[in-house]
Amino acid sequence: MRIRIESARNERVKLAVRLRDRRARDEEGLTLIEGYRENLRALEAGVRPAAFFFCRDLFLGSNEDDLLRRAAAAGADLLDCAEPVFRRISYRDRPDGLLSIAPIVRRTLADLILPAAPLLLVVESVEKPGNLGTMLRSADAAGADAVVMCDPRTDLYNPNTVRASLGTLFTVPVTVASSPEALSWLRARKVRILAGTPSAERLHFECDMTGPVAIAVGAEQYGLSALWMGAADERVRIPMLGRCDSLNVASAATLLLYEAVRQRWPSRQDSTTSGPPSSA
Amino acid sequence: MRIRIESARNERVKLAVRLRDRRARDEEGLTLIEGYRENLRALEAGVRPAAFFFCRDLFLGSNEDDLLRRAAAAGADLLDCAEPVFRRISYRDRPDGLLSIAPIVRRTLADLILPAAPLLLVVESVEKPGNLGTMLRSADAAGADAVVMCDPRTDLYNPNTVRASLGTLFTVPVTVASSPEALSWLRARKVRILAGTPSAERLHFECDMTGPVAIAVGAEQYGLSALWMGAADERVRIPMLGRCDSLNVASAATLLLYEAVRQRWPSRQDSTTSGPPSSA
Repeated sequence: MRIRIESARNERVKLAVRLRDRRARDEEGLTLIEGYRENLRALEAGVRPAAFFFCRDLFLGSNEDDLLRRAAAAGADLLDCAEPVFRRISYRDRPDGLLSIAPIVRRTLADLILPAAPLLLVVESVEKPGNLGTMLRSADAAGADAVVMCDPRTDLYNPNTVRASLGTLFTVPVTVASSPEALSWLRARKVRILAGTPSAERLHFECDMTGPVAIAVGAEQYGLSALWMGAADERVRIPMLGRCDSLNVASAATLLLYEAVRQRWPSRQDSTTSGPPSSA
Repeated sequence: MRIRIESARNERVKLAVRLRDRRARDEEGLTLIEGYRENLRALEAGVRPAAFFFCRDLFLGSNEDDLLRRAAAAGADLLDCAEPVFRRISYRDRPDGLLSIAPIVRRTLADLILPAAPLLLVVESVEKPGNLGTMLRSADAAGADAVVMCDPRTDLYNPNTVRASLGTLFTVPVTVASSPEALSWLRARKVRILAGTPSAERLHFECDMTGPVAIAVGAEQYGLSALWMGAADERVRIPMLGRCDSLNVASAATLLLYEAVRQRWPSRQDSTTSGPPSSA
């Protein structure tokens, strides 16, 4: 169904504005997905948007109509908005004329299906939606099998998380759990827990990440809790060679995930670069 | 000098508010530094703030008075603000009661002093202050010798850059240059240029980064320009194992810098993890 919307008093426009608030998202079980790439990823992952707002005057590329056809095929009503109406619902400085309302899918640990030697990311108590979104994007890129959010202090479906994740929020299996639940789930599956912390002795690239492994990172300000630090099979640090005593949490998670990628990489073209020159 | 400020009509309060705008920062040659860690890094790096606003009711820790003493020793006037006044000048959601006005230092390429095998980061046309700040923080952490910003589309002294950099903007030598200037400067110093790009054949961990090297990354949306792609001695990609076709630019820069750190690391405690299992 394709509908023209000229007025911001339209009920679905009002719903889209309300969904910026977490309480409305939780009540309605719906979230907002703005932007071309974000909606493409969501549709690819099987998300079925209920409504898809668009504004042709704001389109930046030429593939938007394909995306709209795909959304319609997934069951979305296409809502052709006048520009002022679209700007009312957009939460971006420079909207690209695409914004959908989609159902929130909540997974539990029991929903996760893991391979024999999974690579997992555990994110404890992270506060900033942008950091969470960036970690999801990196987890997708590193081929992580799942992301477990423990005791989160931000909503997974915050529009800024969706945005920073570039839509990978919908492609990486993500679940929310309490820390004790996550720990016993990991132990039952014999997954080694690596805690990323500046206080560790061992460097991250000196730690074996080839088996089943969960990389755990903590909150922006205080890092991992005593619970995770104590439960970890190994604590690793990223070398800090400057004045600062820590990295951004998303940068740290990305480095740890990609160290696992490097170690698990099946082959090398050039064995001379597999270690530092002194060990070659 | 210690002055109590009760009114937001105070001239220095007005100045602090104006300095949120780039034009005012450029005109005055001054910038804002908010937060404990940011100001600590700046003072450690020799920055001499002209004025240091504080609000005791907003302090979060117990080391603030040391910081204020240090700022006073560096020549800053200490401005004891009533809470509403401080909230007027703060650009944070949760201010920690510390904000200074400090002179902007502009470096040129000629000001940079490099070691024999420097590790440099070149950042072309990045738009988002948060990404730039995160890259500065990672460059500091990775012990990079300098960061060269080419044709920037954001102001280095944007308060959000200062913030995301956690003050490392003041500890890492940063310079702004045009791309042709930077290229001829790098060539004159025989620094190998590695372009980070998803279109490369070679993986980043298969590329030798042990010599003098400049890692170049491009703008959020479009990556490096044809100029840098053509001029690079080598193009490297970070493996992308998920649905997304690129990483956040700050995540990518961090990974490339730390691959250089890994390769340059002087020794290993455990040689079994120096390569992937198949090459061990």
